[in-house]
Amino acid sequence: MARESDFDWHEEPVPLPGPGQVLVRCEYLSVDPGNRLWMWPTDTTVPVQAIGTVMRGIAMGTVVASRCAAYAEGCVVQGVLGWQDYAIVSGEGHALWRMRQAERLTPQTHMTLCGHVGLAAYFGLLEIGQPRAGETLVVSSAAGAVGSMVGQIGLLRGCRVVGIAGSAQKCRWLREELGFDTAIDYKTEPVFHRLRKLCPVGIDVYFDNVGGPLLEDALANLNVGARVVACGMLSVYNDIAGVLTLPPGPNNLLNLTLRRSRMQGFLYSDYRARAKEAFEHLLDWHAQGRLQVRIDTIEGLRQAPRALNRLFDGSSCGKLIVRMS
Amino acid sequence: MARESDFDWHEEPVPLPGPGQVLVRCEYLSVDPGNRLWMWPTDTTVPVQAIGTVMRGIAMGTVVASRCAAYAEGCVVQGVLGWQDYAIVSGEGHALWRMRQAERLTPQTHMTLCGHVGLAAYFGLLEIGQPRAGETLVVSSAAGAVGSMVGQIGLLRGCRVVGIAGSAQKCRWLREELGFDTAIDYKTEPVFHRLRKLCPVGIDVYFDNVGGPLLEDALANLNVGARVVACGMLSVYNDIAGVLTLPPGPNNLLNLTLRRSRMQGFLYSDYRARAKEAFEHLLDWHAQGRLQVRIDTIEGLRQAPRALNRLFDGSSCGKLIVRMS
Repeated sequence: MARESDFDWHEEPVPLPGPGQVLVRCEYLSVDPGNRLWMWPTDTTVPVQAIGTVMRGIAMGTVVASRCAAYAEGCVVQGVLGWQDYAIVSGEGHALWRMRQAERLTPQTHMTLCGHVGLAAYFGLLEIGQPRAGETLVVSSAAGAVGSMVGQIGLLRGCRVVGIAGSAQKCRWLREELGFDTAIDYKTEPVFHRLRKLCPVGIDVYFDNVGGPLLEDALANLNVGARVVACGMLSVYNDIAGVLTLPPGPNNLLNLTLRRSRMQGFLYSDYRARAKEAFEHLLDWHAQGRLQVRIDTIEGLRQAPRALNRLFDGSSCGKLIVRMS
Repeated sequence: MARESDFDWHEEPVPLPGPGQVLVRCEYLSVDPGNRLWMWPTDTTVPVQAIGTVMRGIAMGTVVASRCAAYAEGCVVQGVLGWQDYAIVSGEGHALWRMRQAERLTPQTHMTLCGHVGLAAYFGLLEIGQPRAGETLVVSSAAGAVGSMVGQIGLLRGCRVVGIAGSAQKCRWLREELGFDTAIDYKTEPVFHRLRKLCPVGIDVYFDNVGGPLLEDALANLNVGARVVACGMLSVYNDIAGVLTLPPGPNNLLNLTLRRSRMQGFLYSDYRARAKEAFEHLLDWHAQGRLQVRIDTIEGLRQAPRALNRLFDGSSCGKLIVRMS
């Protein structure tokens, strides 16, 4: 786990934007498992983060000063603003995206639907997983931000949806509130045997957020032609030395051959150009009450390190967001 | 390794075909790594083989008695005829396929090009691997029947081809005879570092015949958007207890996510309906001298168990075929 002592707190005068830049006041910080990955001593989805630089993190905020025509003062934007109260960001390229008017949505729900979580769930499931009506979708970390959205999109597409989560309470939420067909508590139930029983013809789509033993259990239960969506591997992100000493992987990857299946990774950022399509659907489904977003709000940037660990100790449910004070 | 004592030898009168069946005299037996997989105590690509039944194996032979209109006496056919001199096979369904007239080809070369090896190499590389001109293709077990064909098809498609094989002699054959751009002897060279050096922008297609540590080395060196073709996992087929005690898999599967890559399995038999397309190309390339097939012929069915082990001890090169006496 990351320790609070791994972080240092600095105060300095709020800087002014240079040409082409904007100054954003950060208001809501998204805390994601990938943040821990970004702390690895090797390049991951982003180049290695140098010690002493501002911790990376996706956040939503308001433009308070602008020297970029694309973003006027008052614009609400999202981007990798970092764990800080104010961020200087280039208004060019794809560093920021503008949040359209949020109707009847809290800022937290808005940034979850219309941000990286929405992109990962929507395109990860639909483009990489390619679920068809009547198929069985299994999703791990199912009570998490991405997992809970993936399961609900699967239901909307006519799939039988099995969630895997880490407590009876989370499983109850998935079943009773979100409408998952069933849920497995991996902390108390034998996942391999439960999957075998719950998916008698095998898993068609496994949306994997965790890796580790659950991936092995899923691979052991694939249907012919299955798709494994490699969204992330929460189970290894806390491995201190990073990719250099990772624990071994599943011993049954051969099942990809035996079951003519594929395992495919993706990054939400690959779909930025198609974001509009996802956001329209997600907002629509949410407005119709067919897609629920659960928000877990933590107050104050000082809580960010502790919040990060809550993604790994199982105490978080839904989307974890730090509200800056 | 399979032991000779795992096999028993029976003689019995040659049976006569029933309605819809043909009697085939087996002449050339293909010995493939997958044969060892078929001996596992669990279902694999085929249902578990009962002790005491004829060992499965793909072979080519001549129809010597027929009660099926589709196959007249004298037809040359291929199919899962088993490790036996004569086989009774249904002429219906897809159990057999007919060999067209082989012009200027030995039977061994013919069955290699126009059989499961050709299908696996052609569709595995082109359909699952989807190589593009200018990309880097790495193939393991590159001096094997499938691997050597895959590498040559890659060259024909304009790829840079790196082979991984188990001796300096095999590597020399790949480079000097088959035209591979380069080859790595995994028994004496550090594969991870060699791949890093030889594939500076990363591997675009990794055609995996072996699994194990070489798969880990390949995953560590993927380019963005890479395709891993999971053709087989030679390195685990001799694991006595089968899938129940398989060694752990690669610890860096997360790279599929970080590099937005996919790993996909397939079986040659999935492409039986499109066999004509593959065989036409393969025969054509071979006739033009652009696709070499190396045959390693062993004399006599009694040698089959020993031949099987030669696929795993590194002493075989090219396609291993037993000529029945």
